[in-house]
Amino acid sequence: SRYPSTHPPDTPLSERRSSRHGSAKMAPPPLPPQTLRGCCAARAPTCARTLRAGRPRPLRCSARARAAPQAVRTRCLPWRRERAPCLSRSEGSGDRPRPADCGADRYFDSSRLACAPCGAHQRQSAGGGSCECEPGYRMVSSNGGLSVTCEKCPENMSGVTQDGWNCITCPRGLTSKGNCKCPNNEILGLNIILNYILSAFFMFVIHRCVRCEQTFIQVSKSCDCNSPNILVSRRMVIVLKFRKRKVILKSLYSNLTACQALGNMCVMNMNSLSSSSTDACGLFQYIFVSTARVGVVHSIPYWRHNLPWLYYGDQPGLASQVLEKNHFPTTFTFKGTDKLKFIAASFDAAGNFLKWQNLEGGLLQLCPDTQTKLNAAYIFGTTYQQNCRISVSKILLDFANPVFYDLFLEYNGGNGQQHLWAVPVLNLNLQYNEKFVNQGSNMNNWLLTRRFFLVDALSGKENDLGKPPRVIRIASKITISIRLVSHTQRGTIYPPLITVAYTDVLVQNPETQSVTVSFAVSYEMNQREAQIQTDIALGVLGGLAVLWSLLKTAGWKRRTGSSIIDLQTVFKFLLFYAGDLANVFFIITVGTGIYWLVFFKAQQFVSVLLPLPSQEEDFVTYIACAFSLKALQFLHLLVSQLAIDIFFIDWERPKGKVLKAVEGEGVAKSTAAPVSIWRTYFIANEWNEIQTVRKINPLFQVLAVLFFLEVVGFSNLALMDASSSLSRSSDSYVAPWSRILRFGVSAALWVAIAILQIIFFAVIYERFVEDKISQFVDLCCVSNISVFLLSHNCFGHYIHGRSVHGHADTNMEEMNMNLKREAENLCSQRGLLPNTDGQTFQISISRKMRLNYDWIHETLTRKRGPARLLDSSANTFEQSTRAYNAMNKFLSSFIDHVHKEMDYIVKDKLLLERILGMEFMEPIEKSIFYNDEGHSFTDVLYYGNETTLLIFDILFFSVVDLASQSFVLAAILTYLQQEIFRFIRTTLGQKNLASKTLVDQRFLI
Amino acid sequence: SRYPSTHPPDTPLSERRSSRHGSAKMAPPPLPPQTLRGCCAARAPTCARTLRAGRPRPLRCSARARAAPQAVRTRCLPWRRERAPCLSRSEGSGDRPRPADCGADRYFDSSRLACAPCGAHQRQSAGGGSCECEPGYRMVSSNGGLSVTCEKCPENMSGVTQDGWNCITCPRGLTSKGNCKCPNNEILGLNIILNYILSAFFMFVIHRCVRCEQTFIQVSKSCDCNSPNILVSRRMVIVLKFRKRKVILKSLYSNLTACQALGNMCVMNMNSLSSSSTDACGLFQYIFVSTARVGVVHSIPYWRHNLPWLYYGDQPGLASQVLEKNHFPTTFTFKGTDKLKFIAASFDAAGNFLKWQNLEGGLLQLCPDTQTKLNAAYIFGTTYQQNCRISVSKILLDFANPVFYDLFLEYNGGNGQQHLWAVPVLNLNLQYNEKFVNQGSNMNNWLLTRRFFLVDALSGKENDLGKPPRVIRIASKITISIRLVSHTQRGTIYPPLITVAYTDVLVQNPETQSVTVSFAVSYEMNQREAQIQTDIALGVLGGLAVLWSLLKTAGWKRRTGSSIIDLQTVFKFLLFYAGDLANVFFIITVGTGIYWLVFFKAQQFVSVLLPLPSQEEDFVTYIACAFSLKALQFLHLLVSQLAIDIFFIDWERPKGKVLKAVEGEGVAKSTAAPVSIWRTYFIANEWNEIQTVRKINPLFQVLAVLFFLEVVGFSNLALMDASSSLSRSSDSYVAPWSRILRFGVSAALWVAIAILQIIFFAVIYERFVEDKISQFVDLCCVSNISVFLLSHNCFGHYIHGRSVHGHADTNMEEMNMNLKREAENLCSQRGLLPNTDGQTFQISISRKMRLNYDWIHETLTRKRGPARLLDSSANTFEQSTRAYNAMNKFLSSFIDHVHKEMDYIVKDKLLLERILGMEFMEPIEKSIFYNDEGHSFTDVLYYGNETTLLIFDILFFSVVDLASQSFVLAAILTYLQQEIFRFIRTTLGQKNLASKTLVDQRFLI
Repeated sequence: SRYPSTHPPDTPLSERRSSRHGSAKMAPPPLPPQTLRGCCAARAPTCARTLRAGRPRPLRCSARARAAPQAVRTRCLPWRRERAPCLSRSEGSGDRPRPADCGADRYFDSSRLACAPCGAHQRQSAGGGSCECEPGYRMVSSNGGLSVTCEKCPENMSGVTQDGWNCITCPRGLTSKGNCKCPNNEILGLNIILNYILSAFFMFVIHRCVRCEQTFIQVSKSCDCNSPNILVSRRMVIVLKFRKRKVILKSLYSNLTACQALGNMCVMNMNSLSSSSTDACGLFQYIFVSTARVGVVHSIPYWRHNLPWLYYGDQPGLASQVLEKNHFPTTFTFKGTDKLKFIAASFDAAGNFLKWQNLEGGLLQLCPDTQTKLNAAYIFGTTYQQNCRISVSKILLDFANPVFYDLFLEYNGGNGQQHLWAVPVLNLNLQYNEKFVNQGSNMNNWLLTRRFFLVDALSGKENDLGKPPRVIRIASKITISIRLVSHTQRGTIYPPLITVAYTDVLVQNPETQSVTVSFAVSYEMNQREAQIQTDIALGVLGGLAVLWSLLKTAGWKRRTGSSIIDLQTVFKFLLFYAGDLANVFFIITVGTGIYWLVFFKAQQFVSVLLPLPSQEEDFVTYIACAFSLKALQFLHLLVSQLAIDIFFIDWERPKGKVLKAVEGEGVAKSTAAPVSIWRTYFIANEWNEIQTVRKINPLFQVLAVLFFLEVVGFSNLALMDASSSLSRSSDSYVAPWSRILRFGVSAALWVAIAILQIIFFAVIYERFVEDKISQFVDLCCVSNISVFLLSHNCFGHYIHGRSVHGHADTNMEEMNMNLKREAENLCSQRGLLPNTDGQTFQISISRKMRLNYDWIHETLTRKRGPARLLDSSANTFEQSTRAYNAMNKFLSSFIDHVHKEMDYIVKDKLLLERILGMEFMEPIEKSIFYNDEGHSFTDVLYYGNETTLLIFDILFFSVVDLASQSFVLAAILTYLQQEIFRFIRTTLGQKNLASKTLVDQRFLI
Repeated sequence: SRYPSTHPPDTPLSERRSSRHGSAKMAPPPLPPQTLRGCCAARAPTCARTLRAGRPRPLRCSARARAAPQAVRTRCLPWRRERAPCLSRSEGSGDRPRPADCGADRYFDSSRLACAPCGAHQRQSAGGGSCECEPGYRMVSSNGGLSVTCEKCPENMSGVTQDGWNCITCPRGLTSKGNCKCPNNEILGLNIILNYILSAFFMFVIHRCVRCEQTFIQVSKSCDCNSPNILVSRRMVIVLKFRKRKVILKSLYSNLTACQALGNMCVMNMNSLSSSSTDACGLFQYIFVSTARVGVVHSIPYWRHNLPWLYYGDQPGLASQVLEKNHFPTTFTFKGTDKLKFIAASFDAAGNFLKWQNLEGGLLQLCPDTQTKLNAAYIFGTTYQQNCRISVSKILLDFANPVFYDLFLEYNGGNGQQHLWAVPVLNLNLQYNEKFVNQGSNMNNWLLTRRFFLVDALSGKENDLGKPPRVIRIASKITISIRLVSHTQRGTIYPPLITVAYTDVLVQNPETQSVTVSFAVSYEMNQREAQIQTDIALGVLGGLAVLWSLLKTAGWKRRTGSSIIDLQTVFKFLLFYAGDLANVFFIITVGTGIYWLVFFKAQQFVSVLLPLPSQEEDFVTYIACAFSLKALQFLHLLVSQLAIDIFFIDWERPKGKVLKAVEGEGVAKSTAAPVSIWRTYFIANEWNEIQTVRKINPLFQVLAVLFFLEVVGFSNLALMDASSSLSRSSDSYVAPWSRILRFGVSAALWVAIAILQIIFFAVIYERFVEDKISQFVDLCCVSNISVFLLSHNCFGHYIHGRSVHGHADTNMEEMNMNLKREAENLCSQRGLLPNTDGQTFQISISRKMRLNYDWIHETLTRKRGPARLLDSSANTFEQSTRAYNAMNKFLSSFIDHVHKEMDYIVKDKLLLERILGMEFMEPIEKSIFYNDEGHSFTDVLYYGNETTLLIFDILFFSVVDLASQSFVLAAILTYLQQEIFRFIRTTLGQKNLASKTLVDQRFLI
């Protein structure tokens, strides 16, 4: 046993009794003073006493208070500070004069809030608020604290009645208070008997000094009750025949409250059962078994007549039968606010029924809070959590007497009647044969009980009920679990279960000690099926992702023009697979998130409940996977975009020879008119600018999501409660966040706003305001420059920008004329093939073509080799200019079908080719130009990869949010992330553009 | 009197008394049952009673319960639902069997939680939990509820003692319970006396049925107290000599608790004093005056011996003396958490001192909340506000008995002693001579009091104490005001004041009724000085703003080239003044905000306290003024920027004649080689792009501010508490926002981050990454194009972009060569004047020059006139091309000093000219070019107006935040505002650029 027993169990009762008398004298039992009054009053005073209306004496600081020694300090109420203070108090006794501080010879004058001296032969009364006569003196008159008059009792009547007005003869001597001694007046009640039996196992010691009944006094004028009868309480008389234990038990279980008290003692002992020893619960079980014949209550086999219902039998597997065999007979909805009407029958420690109590108002919630928040615990569907630390002193104050609860859940029977359903308790501290059977997760081992308490500050008391307990036991963790029946469409639940964990606190310094308590209501359902479905989806989509990645790899192999499967291929496959798997995870997580959001929040008849936080781990893992894989794909995309080959083909030819007057010679010299490079600069600049143009405004996206989440209040949808409202009043309970719902809400908002933005930009903005991509293609044509870009070794894009007017390098007059002519349809069409409009192509070039391209580029690569250190910068300039001219010449002649051995054909892509994003034909002899109306060259820009970027942003946002639980931080970091990557993409893209197109980087502004 | 009196005041007492007897019979007074027990017990039973250990009878559903009629419904505890339920309850009596529901012949079996029948001659006992014998039957044995045995009393002893064990003879007949009648046992206590005196004014009626003293019974075996003495309470015996009022008063004020009770009655009557009538307060005052000789307590002249301290005299002006003459003797700091240690002495209605109580723990806070939040009210410096609605039923439950408080503030005397300072109460409901003197703001009229209560559910009771009151009075608004002494540096405060407003609630339906209560702790100081200083600053700066605006207007007049003061000038002056005044308001508000932020939050020894919300109105007005004026300035800026005149001067000259092979003729034709327009396109495009470039990244600005406010937690600095920590724990009290601090924090963050950004961009980004403005100037030079722009009629900017190589319209080879030559310093310098670098100028052109410029533009304006409808578009093109060429020629010749009559000189600006931003010299003969190294042409871009834009953004953000109290919404709307104005600026700027420079808008992409 944990608590040290006062006496060894083999001490005889009589001996213990006498020692208890001693202690009882030292600290009288805390009964109300009135209760003790009748006792030992020997004779009645006459009623013919007249009032001595004491003349009000002026009260001044007594000389004693003024000349107080060091130990008594003066205390001031500072109305007029210059005058001498006179409210004195003794040192060390708190900070304000309290009745107890006044000492024995002074009383507490509550009008002055100070101590005042008592008169002669007087001392402080019990309450401290008045004076009473000293022992051996009787009261003659009394008119409030100060005007008591005392008179000495005659020699032969040295005792004083309890009310103090009369002197009596005391046959058995005087107490310290001057009253008659009543040795048998102080008896130990029921608990001493139990204690005798249980002292080996149980520390329950209550010194209840039960007063003699009035009636006794009136007969014998003393408190002698005739042995062997002693009165225990008004209604319950127990014969103490110390002969056979059986008789005691009989008298015990024949009595209602005694059995309840025994049951409570068992509950205070954690309902623990052990076959090897006999304690309160053992005794209870003994009585339970031996009273089988008295019949059961309410048809419940565990509820005996006259006995409290403590246990649901101890057969293995009974718990799961109790909890899962039957459904709770009523159903719940999310419409309005269905309440869980828990009702508790409360009992005091002595076994008296107190009352029926609704759990609302915080009956079981030890942490204080506002009513609304406390009651929110019982709104159906609201996951509730409350934690706090409470000081032990407050617990001792509020829960001086333990209260025991039998919990029921009220429901409406079919015929309009109200029924009660007994709620089983899972006591985690219960030991069954010295094992904590309830702490495992195996429901079949559980031993369910019924009664529980919040705080037991009683059983930890040692010897003296008036003193604070040495140990208190607190129900530190109470959880009510509501479990939904699977596949229900109408909100059917299993019977609720209340799980209680108790903590023992050794009381050392109640003011500074504190204890953590928690109260929770959790809603759960079997998530195995959802888990299985997720797994299946993951498997199927994962398999598809492999196939898709294989196809992509094959397409990539074709585009790079090689067919050997080398390490690079495997690596590339893995990268593709990462991207596809990220999409799979993303689809599954978004699907799951939106599924829970819609099905949980929109349901009226409850059919699903959210996964518990512990069940969300898988989901979080999926998001983490999706994010890291998507990040990989995004980086891959960035790197490949930063390495593309690009060249601007200038179709402009010199307009003829220029006659230049050479200085000094006087004759005109004819040179080829130079073709202005400014159009190329212009195009390069524009290309540079559309690098990071996106189909949406990413920043608006972030801020719009933030706006809807935080300002409109969509974030409230992520709370684990039944409400689907977007606003919460400030004083209502805020349920904990569900991570799945947070992701669901934010991802749904991201996707919805992104779709709206894409539609807005595609349908309105790009049509009526500006379309950067089409503008660029048009600009190519107007400026007579084509864009030739290779994203892979043998694959790329071509934007045909040959001016329909033959030249563009001209003055404003001609430019305007040209534009006007084109607007009036006076020129040919812009397409590469005659009479077509097709300006953009996907190109699949032959190996030979690529070799030629590389060969020309070699001059540049050579420049970059070790040789560049030897070259002067002049050489570099020349070299690059020469390379530029050669490349320009080569590519324009290629487009013009000049090189017969490197010719190309133009064709349409097959539907399947379009869908798969790969080419079936290998460009062996001729290169192939595929018509492409969809501006697929944007694949090498941000613009063509909106999906990847968007998903990356969503996942980034969600990961930050899941880690920090702050949408604001997530939005800010997402913006920063976007800016950083955009800066990298722009800067490095600019570098690549300058190096590949030979346009000076200074013109890319 | 508001409460209807039960009897008209002139009813004789005897008559009233008898009627009260009747009502007392109907509803017995709610005293504990034990207290009544001794009464009328005629003879003592013997103690030799043995226990009949009742054999446990099996309890089954009684036949009566099974075959219950319609009125009795069955009720199930659903353990085995298939079995028949048997816990029955009577219809309509709540939802669970309660002892009261069982009916008279059944008792409540608390083990079964159901009713069980009593035995023969038995009925339900008072508690309902057991049976007792019917009247006329005495108990023979009792062993819990079910096993009571009763026996009929003999004929001559038909009465039963109170404990039920014995039969007695009743001299005065039997009560309905079978006990003896004790007519004089029910007497009306003290209050009947008071009621007799006060019934005309005061509704206080308490039917306290005081029991006969034990001693009487023991003498006479009946409850007859000999007249005229009746016992009122144990310690207080009052002679009811209905002869002279003076005697009664004497007996009243000679008694401690009676005087306290009288005081409490006065408090319950709102301390109202009236010279015309006598009520409790009048009586109190009478006693107070008549006891002048008994002396005062604690040297406080208003605190008489034996009397409670209710009033601080009623001399006019006393309140301000009490509140402001003395300082509170201790000082407070913001270091750590200084607490206001309020201590209340509490009394019950009868005047008994209960205990000293600390206000912590929510003693005065009616709204429930967590301990931490409740206690936050007493942390010095934390403005505390708590409001809620409480149901009347809860109030009736929690405050059945009124408790009265005398409030003190504890402080540490110099010598380590703890002292108490009495806190005065300002009762807003107090009437002095029928006037609510405390409701005005004039402190001299106030009548301060001492004692107050929270809920008075006692005085509204009518006739019967057991019934709920008809009216309750609630302290619905309690405010503790802490007022700082002006000019204190060490946290000296005036004595605190507690203001209480009571509300009377007519109790009709306690369950549905509710009442709004509030509790607040406010901190204030005299803000007049701060207000005066603000006014002074506003006056001085406003005057300066007028001067500055006049100067600006003068400068503007000079720049427009006119000198007449017309309506436009006045209008312009007002616009300038709006901008300057906005700056003045902005400086003052930011200064005020940061002042409060720094001085309030950073102070340790308290020297300032925040203005109250009502004192913030001025501040909010200032911000509104600043914002609207700044918005006006911003729009003015936008409009003037959208109307500038700009032209790109192309210096390129044709390189010579081009020999062109004319088709069909075979001969070469020589034409002037066209100058490519693409450089102009390029420059126009770049100019278009730098329109809305800013010195800071406005979006990063918004998000960084949001980040610091919401994520880092700077917003917590705006809370009206003493803490300057950036984080608050989730369960701590959150003080209300201060609007001034909110503005101070956000404006300080805006300014700080903006300065950091400007430094970052100026020192790092523009130097090492890119500087769009310098790039543009360089580009002008490289592309051989000058920018000529006129922001005013005769004032503008010139960017000299003549290529040092003479031409730029060439191929890559030559371009690279040129760049290389320049890098190697082989060419002349770029400046307009030889051997200078100055490329940018402010120009002040002569009237003649402007006329010429306008004349050339006329072709365009004509195009826009009504004539354009007649012109074909071909004509328009031609016209614009011609205009372009003419303008180009005119401006380039002007720069080249070709027109002698429109020459210009280049000079430096004077320092004063720079500072004032105006020109002293009028360009009468010659235009003047001022050297300008500072790129002042950015004045026509966003770039050069960063201050205006930034201040506008700050004010926009603040105004949204002040209106919505949401930084997130403010950030989002600020971003949207920036985007919208940027879009307007870009789009309209593009249009203006196209129309002024004649560059086709399609090239501005």
